[in-house]
Amino acid sequence: MKVYFVEDWLDGLYLGVQIESVVYTTRTKFQELAIFDTVEFGRMLTLDNVIQVTEVDEYIYHECIAHVPLLSYPDPKKVLLIGGGDGGTLREITRHQNIESITMVDIDEGVIEASKKYLPGFNQGFYDPRLNLVIQDGSVFVSETEERFDVIIIDSTDPEGPGEVLFTTEFYQSLRRLLTPSGIMCAQTESPLVMTQTVKDIYHRIADVFPITKIFNVPMACYPGGWWCFTCGSLGPDPEKPLREPEESWNLKFYSPEVHEKVFILGPKLKRDLGIRE
Amino acid sequence: MKVYFVEDWLDGLYLGVQIESVVYTTRTKFQELAIFDTVEFGRMLTLDNVIQVTEVDEYIYHECIAHVPLLSYPDPKKVLLIGGGDGGTLREITRHQNIESITMVDIDEGVIEASKKYLPGFNQGFYDPRLNLVIQDGSVFVSETEERFDVIIIDSTDPEGPGEVLFTTEFYQSLRRLLTPSGIMCAQTESPLVMTQTVKDIYHRIADVFPITKIFNVPMACYPGGWWCFTCGSLGPDPEKPLREPEESWNLKFYSPEVHEKVFILGPKLKRDLGIRE
Repeated sequence: MKVYFVEDWLDGLYLGVQIESVVYTTRTKFQELAIFDTVEFGRMLTLDNVIQVTEVDEYIYHECIAHVPLLSYPDPKKVLLIGGGDGGTLREITRHQNIESITMVDIDEGVIEASKKYLPGFNQGFYDPRLNLVIQDGSVFVSETEERFDVIIIDSTDPEGPGEVLFTTEFYQSLRRLLTPSGIMCAQTESPLVMTQTVKDIYHRIADVFPITKIFNVPMACYPGGWWCFTCGSLGPDPEKPLREPEESWNLKFYSPEVHEKVFILGPKLKRDLGIRE
Repeated sequence: MKVYFVEDWLDGLYLGVQIESVVYTTRTKFQELAIFDTVEFGRMLTLDNVIQVTEVDEYIYHECIAHVPLLSYPDPKKVLLIGGGDGGTLREITRHQNIESITMVDIDEGVIEASKKYLPGFNQGFYDPRLNLVIQDGSVFVSETEERFDVIIIDSTDPEGPGEVLFTTEFYQSLRRLLTPSGIMCAQTESPLVMTQTVKDIYHRIADVFPITKIFNVPMACYPGGWWCFTCGSLGPDPEKPLREPEESWNLKFYSPEVHEKVFILGPKLKRDLGIRE
């Protein structure tokens, strides 16, 4: 018997992933959650029928969204993570021993609970004593908190449903207010190939708020078009330039200082399409 | 009505591409050929139900497979292209005005005829007066010819069916024999994420024959895993180092000298998985 999870990537494009077993499904307060074991992608988490993470390529996403901003900031002590309920980004943040506190804000406790039970490769960060876990809408948290952070990471779902408020100008203005004077924020910002207009809109919203705004891009098999991007807004450091090396003991799979600089290089068409401000 | 072309990317993974119309289908001497107009990928060519090229991402593949070896060779005069019946790679080769002769060897005239009729964005190279078009099995051509080439490009199908002989040690040995003393060859070599063992096998076969062997990688939405790689074997120049800039009039979309150097940077896991020889 062959059973497939099928995701409508776009109106005219879908991906079918053969599943070996359904590990867990639940209806959280906000989303339909499912965890599968798959033939090609290993363990896989979906929310509202959209693939969030798979074992086969999660390290690309999580290493980059965490280490690019953290290693281009001189010595981050206080870090804010919004979203990332699967735990992969938190796992990478906790590798940095000099960080003193990590505040993680996720709207959906159900995702975190599922990760703790069923995503052993992702969830070790939830047990880090530096973690302050807040179950709240990220957009509400950033509008109310008086805390300040050196680095803010936005590991959100797509700009629809619960994730939509995490892509607005108001949200980016709040992030800027929460950053220490030379802070950096880094957000996942969709597919440069098949959602070019979305990426462009988000880029310009961020560039209107931050003095330094830069996009980087990586291959991601499980996301539409297999090509994904992230946008950094900085008040000081150049997000393209790593200031330190990762520790060897981290055993990173995708990130290296060379890869850090490389992922910011965009081809001429993409620069034009996105209206990149040089 | 919604109609999809569905490709089994792997045993447990498939891609569905909604089609607007079937432009042309034929059974060539070697393969089942179809050309579609699609909702998300523009015009698309398939052979034996495998996507070969789509309008939306073809420039990434064709610019890189051509300009990476051509711009890292000092002044190429004679170029050999094996495969590439759709014409995209030939289009990029013909941009180089200093090239004096281009020999293209493709086994399947049916693909070239279809491209001439139905792929107007791809086929202009077929009318270049420097072109010497040979309809022959590439492996036979390279074992028999007495000509010599500065740059050889292998734009083949996958290592199954007609393309299989273009991935053997014997074939790479023939290529080495056909190169001028500091020549370079560049071949498409499959998906580093979901066909890692295949990529590794090919890399080592090439590295056993060429003194300098380097892999580069790009995002490719229409190929399995959305992430593709190419392998260069060189008798002299470093394939990673562009020696000249492309002309502005070429209006390239993906390639730039910066991109050229970037695409060779591999993450630590990929280097380990492929057993890259430093």
